[in-house]
Amino acid sequence: MKEPLLMYTNNTVFLRDELLIILDRRRFPHEVIEVVCHDYEEVAKSIEDMVVQGAGDIAITAGYGLYLAARYVESIAGIKSDEAQEYLVKVRERLENTRPTGYHMKVLLRRLIDQVDWKQPNWSEQILKRIDKIIKKAETRCELTGKWAETLVEDGDCILTHCFPGPALLYMLRLAREHDKRIQLMATETRPYLQGARLTAWSVSELGIPVTLINDNMAAYCMSQGMIAKVFTAADRIALDGTVVNKVGTFQLAIAAHHHQLPFYIFGYGGPDKKCQRGEDIPIELRNPNEVLFFNGINISSKKVKGFYPAFDCTPPQLLAGIITDRGIIRPDEIQIYWSLPF
Amino acid sequence: MKEPLLMYTNNTVFLRDELLIILDRRRFPHEVIEVVCHDYEEVAKSIEDMVVQGAGDIAITAGYGLYLAARYVESIAGIKSDEAQEYLVKVRERLENTRPTGYHMKVLLRRLIDQVDWKQPNWSEQILKRIDKIIKKAETRCELTGKWAETLVEDGDCILTHCFPGPALLYMLRLAREHDKRIQLMATETRPYLQGARLTAWSVSELGIPVTLINDNMAAYCMSQGMIAKVFTAADRIALDGTVVNKVGTFQLAIAAHHHQLPFYIFGYGGPDKKCQRGEDIPIELRNPNEVLFFNGINISSKKVKGFYPAFDCTPPQLLAGIITDRGIIRPDEIQIYWSLPF
Repeated sequence: MKEPLLMYTNNTVFLRDELLIILDRRRFPHEVIEVVCHDYEEVAKSIEDMVVQGAGDIAITAGYGLYLAARYVESIAGIKSDEAQEYLVKVRERLENTRPTGYHMKVLLRRLIDQVDWKQPNWSEQILKRIDKIIKKAETRCELTGKWAETLVEDGDCILTHCFPGPALLYMLRLAREHDKRIQLMATETRPYLQGARLTAWSVSELGIPVTLINDNMAAYCMSQGMIAKVFTAADRIALDGTVVNKVGTFQLAIAAHHHQLPFYIFGYGGPDKKCQRGEDIPIELRNPNEVLFFNGINISSKKVKGFYPAFDCTPPQLLAGIITDRGIIRPDEIQIYWSLPF
Repeated sequence: MKEPLLMYTNNTVFLRDELLIILDRRRFPHEVIEVVCHDYEEVAKSIEDMVVQGAGDIAITAGYGLYLAARYVESIAGIKSDEAQEYLVKVRERLENTRPTGYHMKVLLRRLIDQVDWKQPNWSEQILKRIDKIIKKAETRCELTGKWAETLVEDGDCILTHCFPGPALLYMLRLAREHDKRIQLMATETRPYLQGARLTAWSVSELGIPVTLINDNMAAYCMSQGMIAKVFTAADRIALDGTVVNKVGTFQLAIAAHHHQLPFYIFGYGGPDKKCQRGEDIPIELRNPNEVLFFNGINISSKKVKGFYPAFDCTPPQLLAGIITDRGIIRPDEIQIYWSLPF
């Protein structure tokens, strides 16, 4: 069994010769193309352009962007620590504004700046060490989330997912197979970027688990035919009221699953956003409509037609069976208990 | 205001120099390519390959295929009428088997053969005259269906549709605008063939009505944001129990509309299939999975991944607000009254 490339952040986002290398997720699995970032602005553009994708990996990538900026600023002769801090706060704002919906990046960037000891030299080295620790912690979090999730998987299950829900899906499926559960995955292609077709279907097929790809409009039909046992997706942000914001299409699938009385689970990894009371407070990113109108550079419609591209949607807790975190599986309307669970 | 090309069958399917010309719907609006059919087998292949699309236009195209076969068979010296009939029944079976879900083609082909007066010469001429009459009748049917539908459209409505629901949509929108209703259309792209992006969005934009294209997974989000007033789609077949079989994705949209308490209407044109009691009796065509896996000749996933392509799905009457026919708007659970309505 191969270890899928997307199981570990540093397989696709890493430093080499003091430059940040991002393997372009828009091209997997057909091509492995390295995008080289020389400075934080190039990192910001890569995040905006979806070279990297997924709340957790976006956060780490932005962290590396901050590291590049710290390296630059400390190289300026005679720079004072408050000038450097001011510069890094501006860098942080630029990076934060690349994708408004997720919050992992914001939390990580603030923490990286807040935890620098400005009296010590080598600010960038401090930031880099912190990023390494965060990556290790995130890997443990993915594995634990996958372990909890696996307890929900039964022998014979066909699991539906949408977009690429991150490593927890891969941990879950691998463990289910180690436990001799016969399982298969159905993936929606996830227009317009096709993360389901490319990242999810490819990664799961690398595990040797059968994968079937469908178009986004076919899920309800498959549910009606008894082809699907459970649905699992990720979350880009979870509010304290249990609302889950995730890749657009998640809400539509959750409505369809509810109609068919199928359980819908969320990989919630590190739990909800502490500062977000209500789902309706989460801004939904509206991306360039051309991403809907064009496919492989070709306009799929007509020049007179406009496009509309909300990148995420909100699923209310009533449609969800559970949120799977690194600390356990929590009822969506009780997600606030996350912090009181033993870790 | 231009008359959209797809408003009339004979704009895209017609005889020229005794050959059947079909304008390839897989290429609109980017290219206008003529597919030339010399015999019924080429017509059958064109229907299978989706050169032509939509239950009504498929039926007419198959009718022309039968005409080509009749012309061939009557050219055989000394052919007897029972031999010709036997041949045409085989041709009919070949044509019928191209697309199993719809029924308009089956009804039309049977009628064309049944109504030939075999004692008269020029069997093919009789068939062709009958096709011309059917086309005229179908145009009236589209216009009447559109007129009834327009009574449901209110000033300010944004209407969502899926796939290409045929000329009734265009009649409805044109009439609404003539009545000074400010309206706009939202179209799902309709993977994998993108009929929404290509045929619907393009045709409606030709009417000068604002059109917005979304991916198939975005409809529920748009509904939740109050962006959609009503949903209208076509039907490939309607059972007597009020179940509607239409392009895959219709069911998923109907569930989402029901969740948001939005009315979902069906362009039912000539009413239900008299011979079909229950929706579950309608076979759902499973097409080649490669049509899901490939886009513009490129595999969008990985070689290890399978595809699944149900071309249609079933929407139960409970999710529908009304079926709009040429005779009036009927409650889905009362669709059997279609034949008792004055025409």
